[in-house]
Amino acid sequence: MRPRDLGIAIGVGQPGPHNAITDVAGVGVGHTTLVRGHGPLVVGSGPVRTGVTVIQPRPEPIFRRPLYAGCHRLNGNGELTGLEWVRESGLLTSPIALTNTHSVGVVRDALVAWEVRQRRIGELYWSLPVVGETWDGILNDVGGQHVSAADLWAALAAVAPGPVAEGAVGGGTGMICHGFKGGIGTSSRLVAIDGAPFVVGVLVQANHGRRERLTVAGVPIGRLLPPLDVPLPALPAMPNAGAAGSGSIICVVATDAPLLPHQCRRMAQRAVLGIGRTGGVGEHTSGDLVLCFATGNRDLPEPSASARSAPTHGVTVLDDHRIDSLFIAAVEATEEAIVSALLQADTMVGRDGIVAHRLPPERLRELVPPAG
Amino acid sequence: MRPRDLGIAIGVGQPGPHNAITDVAGVGVGHTTLVRGHGPLVVGSGPVRTGVTVIQPRPEPIFRRPLYAGCHRLNGNGELTGLEWVRESGLLTSPIALTNTHSVGVVRDALVAWEVRQRRIGELYWSLPVVGETWDGILNDVGGQHVSAADLWAALAAVAPGPVAEGAVGGGTGMICHGFKGGIGTSSRLVAIDGAPFVVGVLVQANHGRRERLTVAGVPIGRLLPPLDVPLPALPAMPNAGAAGSGSIICVVATDAPLLPHQCRRMAQRAVLGIGRTGGVGEHTSGDLVLCFATGNRDLPEPSASARSAPTHGVTVLDDHRIDSLFIAAVEATEEAIVSALLQADTMVGRDGIVAHRLPPERLRELVPPAG
Amino acid sequence: MRPRDLGIAIGVGQPGPHNAITDVAGVGVGHTTLVRGHGPLVVGSGPVRTGVTVIQPRPEPIFRRPLYAGCHRLNGNGELTGLEWVRESGLLTSPIALTNTHSVGVVRDALVAWEVRQRRIGELYWSLPVVGETWDGILNDVGGQHVSAADLWAALAAVAPGPVAEGAVGGGTGMICHGFKGGIGTSSRLVAIDGAPFVVGVLVQANHGRRERLTVAGVPIGRLLPPLDVPLPALPAMPNAGAAGSGSIICVVATDAPLLPHQCRRMAQRAVLGIGRTGGVGEHTSGDLVLCFATGNRDLPEPSASARSAPTHGVTVLDDHRIDSLFIAAVEATEEAIVSALLQADTMVGRDGIVAHRLPPERLRELVPPAG
Amino acid sequence: MRPRDLGIAIGVGQPGPHNAITDVAGVGVGHTTLVRGHGPLVVGSGPVRTGVTVIQPRPEPIFRRPLYAGCHRLNGNGELTGLEWVRESGLLTSPIALTNTHSVGVVRDALVAWEVRQRRIGELYWSLPVVGETWDGILNDVGGQHVSAADLWAALAAVAPGPVAEGAVGGGTGMICHGFKGGIGTSSRLVAIDGAPFVVGVLVQANHGRRERLTVAGVPIGRLLPPLDVPLPALPAMPNAGAAGSGSIICVVATDAPLLPHQCRRMAQRAVLGIGRTGGVGEHTSGDLVLCFATGNRDLPEPSASARSAPTHGVTVLDDHRIDSLFIAAVEATEEAIVSALLQADTMVGRDGIVAHRLPPERLRELVPPAG
Repeated sequence: MRPRDLGIAIGVGQPGPHNAITDVAGVGVGHTTLVRGHGPLVVGSGPVRTGVTVIQPRPEPIFRRPLYAGCHRLNGNGELTGLEWVRESGLLTSPIALTNTHSVGVVRDALVAWEVRQRRIGELYWSLPVVGETWDGILNDVGGQHVSAADLWAALAAVAPGPVAEGAVGGGTGMICHGFKGGIGTSSRLVAIDGAPFVVGVLVQANHGRRERLTVAGVPIGRLLPPLDVPLPALPAMPNAGAAGSGSIICVVATDAPLLPHQCRRMAQRAVLGIGRTGGVGEHTSGDLVLCFATGNRDLPEPSASARSAPTHGVTVLDDHRIDSLFIAAVEATEEAIVSALLQADTMVGRDGIVAHRLPPERLRELVPPAG
Repeated sequence: MRPRDLGIAIGVGQPGPHNAITDVAGVGVGHTTLVRGHGPLVVGSGPVRTGVTVIQPRPEPIFRRPLYAGCHRLNGNGELTGLEWVRESGLLTSPIALTNTHSVGVVRDALVAWEVRQRRIGELYWSLPVVGETWDGILNDVGGQHVSAADLWAALAAVAPGPVAEGAVGGGTGMICHGFKGGIGTSSRLVAIDGAPFVVGVLVQANHGRRERLTVAGVPIGRLLPPLDVPLPALPAMPNAGAAGSGSIICVVATDAPLLPHQCRRMAQRAVLGIGRTGGVGEHTSGDLVLCFATGNRDLPEPSASARSAPTHGVTVLDDHRIDSLFIAAVEATEEAIVSALLQADTMVGRDGIVAHRLPPERLRELVPPAG
Repeated sequence: MRPRDLGIAIGVGQPGPHNAITDVAGVGVGHTTLVRGHGPLVVGSGPVRTGVTVIQPRPEPIFRRPLYAGCHRLNGNGELTGLEWVRESGLLTSPIALTNTHSVGVVRDALVAWEVRQRRIGELYWSLPVVGETWDGILNDVGGQHVSAADLWAALAAVAPGPVAEGAVGGGTGMICHGFKGGIGTSSRLVAIDGAPFVVGVLVQANHGRRERLTVAGVPIGRLLPPLDVPLPALPAMPNAGAAGSGSIICVVATDAPLLPHQCRRMAQRAVLGIGRTGGVGEHTSGDLVLCFATGNRDLPEPSASARSAPTHGVTVLDDHRIDSLFIAAVEATEEAIVSALLQADTMVGRDGIVAHRLPPERLRELVPPAG
Repeated sequence: MRPRDLGIAIGVGQPGPHNAITDVAGVGVGHTTLVRGHGPLVVGSGPVRTGVTVIQPRPEPIFRRPLYAGCHRLNGNGELTGLEWVRESGLLTSPIALTNTHSVGVVRDALVAWEVRQRRIGELYWSLPVVGETWDGILNDVGGQHVSAADLWAALAAVAPGPVAEGAVGGGTGMICHGFKGGIGTSSRLVAIDGAPFVVGVLVQANHGRRERLTVAGVPIGRLLPPLDVPLPALPAMPNAGAAGSGSIICVVATDAPLLPHQCRRMAQRAVLGIGRTGGVGEHTSGDLVLCFATGNRDLPEPSASARSAPTHGVTVLDDHRIDSLFIAAVEATEEAIVSALLQADTMVGRDGIVAHRLPPERLRELVPPAG
């Protein structure tokens, strides 16, 4: 059940065939989902509600065939490794992996190991993987660090083009968004520029937002579905429970337009407006980080120091005066990806019996006027 | 053997009693050094020339008692996790660990585990550790990922105030700097501001720079000690060996002055000038990242969402017009820390018999006029 | 006629007594409005539809009594002078003036002259004024540079607390927003933090946005009031008229909360979400810049080099865990300020008879469900 | 008298034929120098020791034929207008003008007027000029704002390729650097990349630095030529004279290499290392700002909204692995430009009879060992 199945259209743009980040040709997504155990939290034992999601930006090894990229931060209570290299070089040289806050390291080093296995002896290289996180400690034994290197490799092996599983899968397994069950969501937009077709795709790991601020297509859903109506996850006794639910969102934007690094950064910044339209405000405890990559230039030189490339090379650049339609696509696809994450995630019972309820589709259908 | 033992003084400032980052009261440093095996590189087996260095910013748990901090990038071919949180909050909430490029993850997650063990069940918290790296793949089986969580915990257990081991220790074990053996270096400066004493301390993990650009106290040492004189590490056959040696430097600046986050950022930026004075230019393949923390405000509220702090609190701020003397101290201490790393590191034989030669102290003494 | 006069409430917060930036105690606003001539554009002669707006952050000379401040850019096709100093020092040391794009210089130097007149001979100081702009070339002879130093001084002399004139006044005189007549708008929010009252006020010079994207309180007003219904300003023949209307917005956020510079920067960033909620996407040709200042610390040392202040001083800091309510206030007040700018601006006939139509209040009342 | 006339070579690179920014083909420089009156300061009357310097990045109108550009800040106590647009778009669309702190506005608006005169009626455009400043208030009646629009136009008219006048000319007329007479300086480096020749040129307006920190080619000249030897400018009585001399430096880097915007930003950052090598530390009262533009892509689309360009276009990019030689060139040329500014500036008597002494060439020759 996705927003458009309910007749809910976000914005005015047209999604691609899968309405997913994989509508950008060559992009693949894979998940490893870990759901084990029930009952009280025993740190190190479980219950486990977590996982890993991987986005492969192109079929060829990204560490040899980099793509232009840029990033942006709405609020920094989070981690997305590799950003200094993205900012400096304007290049994405790593798959993108998303997991829980306390397992970023194992996933990062597993990405290194994956690259090491594909390198020749004697190659001079270093791996600076891109791994993001959001915090699933309400439902998951996050302190138990249950994600393993094998889980990352399984997600890599599962990478595929086409439809993308959403909701409580992969890195999104244990997430909560605007007080409902959250997780992975995705969407895309087709953009015609002077007749040439481009795609913008977005994938989010949505764990952010307070109930009272959720807004869908301009309708204040959070206020119309208050906790009395759909309960919030009942947190264990804690001194400052009020902050709960102000988790994080990692947003990955992909496009096949030929954007330069600084244009990718601008695209990343626009995703923030989609977060804002659905009610995110970059709360203090939120890690709202965006990465954008562009596949329009597919023949950039290999960044490894062992490679030998020509002193100069040609690239293609989208004219700045055409970029607004991509900006709008990024805003809309982000907004729709968040709503899709909410709709696609089933109610989950986590550690200590805490329940994260699904955003009820039938109520959403009632409250949001049909598009058109 | 440190620079001042040779009569070489960098700049005009006076070092503290240990001429180390630990001259900032409360700061401790610990190392785990891993040196195992000889002979040809077998990825996963060795030889191993690596380790972990930990800086504890204060004796109390930093995740409960944060300090103001800021950061700066000279060149971003590197990783220093946790920076988005430092930039956003202006807070350091983690020990700082330094290791090799391909082991950042295990060290990061081990820092998480260390924090988890000290948290109460039911506390609402998330850990965003600060882990930096430089690449030791010339001497070390970096692809073998030989650092373990236990190595980080051992470094944490070894944290102590007082003199700091330098050279080929801890995270600096396998490093090469300006074509000589590099590693960990440290220095400090005493600064009197209107009669009040402050300290600025710096610790570097120095793996950066080309031989021909090494400059010590203004003397072009690299040109005066060319490879014919002191050989460069003989790299295995590789297509683009010319880039070798342009590794990275992580620089940590500490001060007991009461600086706000934006003032810490400014301090971090000044360390770059010390890198530049010794011949670093932020080469493309270098990851030159700086973190600065200030211990002058020791009672900042606990950042955990479980804590309950007052709605406002008071802090002390150094008047901006007094900050230049701290800037100069940061420049000089960085410069001296780099030279100290070079002098304190003994010649090392690494994988495939590659030799990284020590900067010969007697030659340095000849070439650099004595201070004063 | 303001939004609340139509029963339209933006968000959930409570405005202050004036629903204006001047609800922050000590903040004053003054305008100089220049409307002269009709008919065809003769560069240098007119017609003139422009002006200057000044925000005084406090009654005392701000160059001697600075306030903490921060800034943020959504899109950079614009100018806001003085930002490097704000970013570096975290201080606002200048009144804030807003005018048209081609008159930033005269206004800036007039602010210098105003400061020079108040300085003593022999004082060592330099003035780095903050002057922002948006482009009024659709209605105004912007190339004629009709704003004079005297106009800035008149706006300074007109600065007053209390109600703020909105719409086609001051720097907002010739502005167009989302295809309707735009200009100056303001709003405020009262925020109680643990019982302590704070205010967040926003003033915008709104010249941005495309008709089709205007959204008010979640309702897609722009699509419901298309150009066939309310005409767009009929631009003179030009090759690329499509870009017109994608002008800029300057947003000034004020609060009496005791925020540090990095917290001010975070507040400035949130204003962008209010721009996004009303349909701004930071279009390529838009200069969307935000400045936030905080009056909660009123005794910061004088920044002049001639001053002699204590080596350290105390300041008060709002606990980060309370900042979300200020973030939300900044978002809502920005959104409401934009809508207020639209409602308060009467239809204007500019150069070449171009008409910028007012957003019709009665239509807005019909289309937006009343609050509550 | 330039450094190389004294046998002083900075670094190892080879300068171009003019050892000037104009060695980058197409770059031109023009000055207007204002020296009027003697005796006591009467604000508004004089004495006048100031001016304007203009750098034209290419012969064709830069507002129609933009170039890629980037910028960097060492310390922000200064102004360089237009940076938000450079950062956002990666484009330089304006000549670069340098003047005194209190005349930035008049010069900026005069650049607007210059562009307005070249635009067609009906064109949709906006001008966002780049104007930088340093503060000449020790020698000049800076509060009198003696620079006029005509002075800027005269500097524009004087723009020429070839040798560049240095020292107390143009915007550098009244400047003081490291306690000596400062002003305009320039230098260049030839760089061969895989046999292809490139040029890096730098022009500085040098008003920064303390005497005791001046370093030339590694020699601590400032300590060897203390005030007892060569007096500092004797400032009028003021409470905090100690800060004097910590003025600002604006640095413009040009290259004919085909750099993208993010590569230009990286180049700009390297200039800071050249400032650091000569003893600058980005003092609190210094406005140390760098702009870099690259002429290697000369056919970028016109940025005006009236233009009609193709949806995509091709550009050439320098391989990142070749960029270090440009970085080194930027460092060295900046360092040499500062020293050249010092040597080329004659002793000047300014307002109130204050004397800024020239760095004595014969002393420099004695103290700095000849190159090679």
